[in-house]
Amino acid sequence: MFAKKTYVERRRQLMKDVSKGLILIVGNSDSAFNYQANTYSFRQDSTFRYFFGYDLQGLVGVIDVESGDEYLFGEEVSMDDIIWTGPVPTLSERAKGIGVKHSGTIRELRALIDKAVFAGRKVHFVPQYRRENVEFVADLLHIDSEYIAAYVSVELIAACVKQRSIKSEEEIVEIEKAIATAYDMHTTMMHMASKTGTYEYQIAGTMEGIALAGGGPVSFPIILTTHGEILHGHDHSLKIKKGRMIVSDAGCENPAGYCSDITRSVPVGGKFDDRQRLIYQAVLDAQLLVFDLCKPNVKYSDIHKAAVQKLGEGLKSIGLMKGDIHEAVEQGAMGMFMPHGLGHMMGLDVHDMENYGENYVGYDKKNVRSTQFGLASLRLGRELKSGFVLTDEPGCYFVPALIDQWKAEKKCSSFINYKEVEKFKDFGGIRIEDDVLITLNGCRLLGKPIPKTIDEIETEMSR
Amino acid sequence: MFAKKTYVERRRQLMKDVSKGLILIVGNSDSAFNYQANTYSFRQDSTFRYFFGYDLQGLVGVIDVESGDEYLFGEEVSMDDIIWTGPVPTLSERAKGIGVKHSGTIRELRALIDKAVFAGRKVHFVPQYRRENVEFVADLLHIDSEYIAAYVSVELIAACVKQRSIKSEEEIVEIEKAIATAYDMHTTMMHMASKTGTYEYQIAGTMEGIALAGGGPVSFPIILTTHGEILHGHDHSLKIKKGRMIVSDAGCENPAGYCSDITRSVPVGGKFDDRQRLIYQAVLDAQLLVFDLCKPNVKYSDIHKAAVQKLGEGLKSIGLMKGDIHEAVEQGAMGMFMPHGLGHMMGLDVHDMENYGENYVGYDKKNVRSTQFGLASLRLGRELKSGFVLTDEPGCYFVPALIDQWKAEKKCSSFINYKEVEKFKDFGGIRIEDDVLITLNGCRLLGKPIPKTIDEIETEMSR
Repeated sequence: MFAKKTYVERRRQLMKDVSKGLILIVGNSDSAFNYQANTYSFRQDSTFRYFFGYDLQGLVGVIDVESGDEYLFGEEVSMDDIIWTGPVPTLSERAKGIGVKHSGTIRELRALIDKAVFAGRKVHFVPQYRRENVEFVADLLHIDSEYIAAYVSVELIAACVKQRSIKSEEEIVEIEKAIATAYDMHTTMMHMASKTGTYEYQIAGTMEGIALAGGGPVSFPIILTTHGEILHGHDHSLKIKKGRMIVSDAGCENPAGYCSDITRSVPVGGKFDDRQRLIYQAVLDAQLLVFDLCKPNVKYSDIHKAAVQKLGEGLKSIGLMKGDIHEAVEQGAMGMFMPHGLGHMMGLDVHDMENYGENYVGYDKKNVRSTQFGLASLRLGRELKSGFVLTDEPGCYFVPALIDQWKAEKKCSSFINYKEVEKFKDFGGIRIEDDVLITLNGCRLLGKPIPKTIDEIETEMSR
Repeated sequence: MFAKKTYVERRRQLMKDVSKGLILIVGNSDSAFNYQANTYSFRQDSTFRYFFGYDLQGLVGVIDVESGDEYLFGEEVSMDDIIWTGPVPTLSERAKGIGVKHSGTIRELRALIDKAVFAGRKVHFVPQYRRENVEFVADLLHIDSEYIAAYVSVELIAACVKQRSIKSEEEIVEIEKAIATAYDMHTTMMHMASKTGTYEYQIAGTMEGIALAGGGPVSFPIILTTHGEILHGHDHSLKIKKGRMIVSDAGCENPAGYCSDITRSVPVGGKFDDRQRLIYQAVLDAQLLVFDLCKPNVKYSDIHKAAVQKLGEGLKSIGLMKGDIHEAVEQGAMGMFMPHGLGHMMGLDVHDMENYGENYVGYDKKNVRSTQFGLASLRLGRELKSGFVLTDEPGCYFVPALIDQWKAEKKCSSFINYKEVEKFKDFGGIRIEDDVLITLNGCRLLGKPIPKTIDEIETEMSR
């Protein structure tokens, strides 16, 4: 946790940015694993953690915008609890710890909300993604649980996005700690991938253990696969074999709750073959170009386009594409090789604030999400600002089902050399990802650089 | 997964044990972590996995007891899905893989259930512990979600408990694999605990990594604490210090879904001091006695009593207890030192079948749960049968809040030597746990023995 002052200031800013009413911020409870008492590791809601700090179950924060009153609600610990859990601070002591004046039980919260509802006051809340919290908010506000999405406060979302998009120096420190752990995760992966015969789950499990030993969970289920072309692949059942690239997309949360999100793609056995070398370099050139382009007031959708154009030029030099690559990008040909976006915001969430709705975070009135395949998947399209933390993660994949589909439709056939592409159907995929801070004049790679060039990776893997 | 035959036979037995109606078995879906698309690692429902095998999201099984028809319901994979997830079997192929004849969409499931409901047929289901599944079952059966517990089928619970309580040889093989991984987890803990200055979360995280690299998650959130007297302690924030015992209660699930659950208590630094040695030996003697007593037709509640009596005799020899220890046990004095039960069933769930309700699993009409503090927490009280797998986990704790409470009430003061107990308020706690199979004539320790005697632990820690 940060010092009390941080939370006081964040809530003060929030009060300024929301015009009137009550702001309701619901913390998470435990999620059942295989029965009620056996739970997944607790994961606090990021909005709650940002404004109320505590990484604890069953808490609710309320801010009265007009009166300035702030509340922390929860259940008091009983004598019986103390026998099983040891001594813990009272709720009112916890409230004081984050500069909140009032505290009370969930019953008292219900009374406060009822009073506001009957007085016709607006109760602001953000979208809920856990079923328990959907039911809780619905019950609290007497709204049908199937319809609470309709009552979400866009004003509160905008106020949260405004603050959370700009990372403070103390937040950057935490993100860099999470990247330091990711450094160990990915270099360990490289060492394990230098030998064949290991199962993917052994590598992924070892990486997750490093995250946990660093004091936090993984920031998302690790993607570790020798079939990088399967983009949503969380299957880790294969034995790694020479000739395949391993795509390792993994990060962690540090004890303060901040994320890292890094991807490295390495050849099983430790040496790139010719084909791997060519595709890898094309992706790397695109990834490196992004560092030259990132600065305040540039749209990330434009940087996405520039990066995929660079990738396309690389693929043209290999013979997989042809024609005017700028035109190929405009016509959406690059979606064939990179059907996802260049990157997303990162902070307390690996896709930062994604529960608010991607378009509220990554787009605005001036910058509307594209409908073009590939670019449509870009989560962050709007103009960058100093203090943004985002990912730079181009990739190149050979998805057999997609190749067959596009080829049959003769889609972008003036730009894609299908005859050559056919030969890469057994290739898999490559993705390279780092975390980037937008600075006053440009950008900065966050954390200690993790081996990334072909030479650096081959050297690390031979260690 | 086991061979098709296993699942066919299990469902055939279930059909015999339920008199009539439809049996509805709902598989799990992903649980949201910090937003909808970022989920915890998937954990299948154990009842679904036991009867329908698949470790996959969004599946529902139905068995028509009268007609013998069996169904697997889910959503078909679309072309778009294949682009992102790679080729996967169809639902009807999956159904065939477990010997199920019919398959269909969730919409078709709704039609089937509606037909049964309107025909006045009973639809059996077991208690649901995930909010999403509570809502799903309530919606499917048109029952108010707050009241679905009232409609649970006790007949189905009994039929499931009957089968799942008796482990087959192929299940024992899997449980022993999970214990093999736990062996590595706990010996690694011992090596890490032999040095001071490490944080508890570094040890716990490394242990969880070993579980994950073994292909399964931990079977419950690891308890790893130098405050063993805090029984529900999942806090891992402390630096380990000489003079404290580490209680490490941790197990894993293996890829087939079967659990291990092992506790070892070791002295930070690797050498027991005199006090630790005395308490440890008292707990160990109780734990070892259980192996002499476990056999079919003996009540586990009687073995619990025998074990705590053995512990009490040990504590008497140290001067912490006095008087007639058999009488002390009857009067509940041992709850002071061991406020929990001796053990529980283990299988696909670490507390096996706990979602059905503990009393349906661990007790029956002849054997009713005690209300005495300590014994009341025993999850398994009924007569043992050949094929049961259970834990043997006595412990001894010095809980300051509990000592103060009992002392003030002069509770059991003819058996507890409070003056001596006061001196142990800084001790913490010790617990020792193994997994045991009830055989035809007795019992067998499952898995390769993990260092447990004082000598074995000191030797392992000096490695």
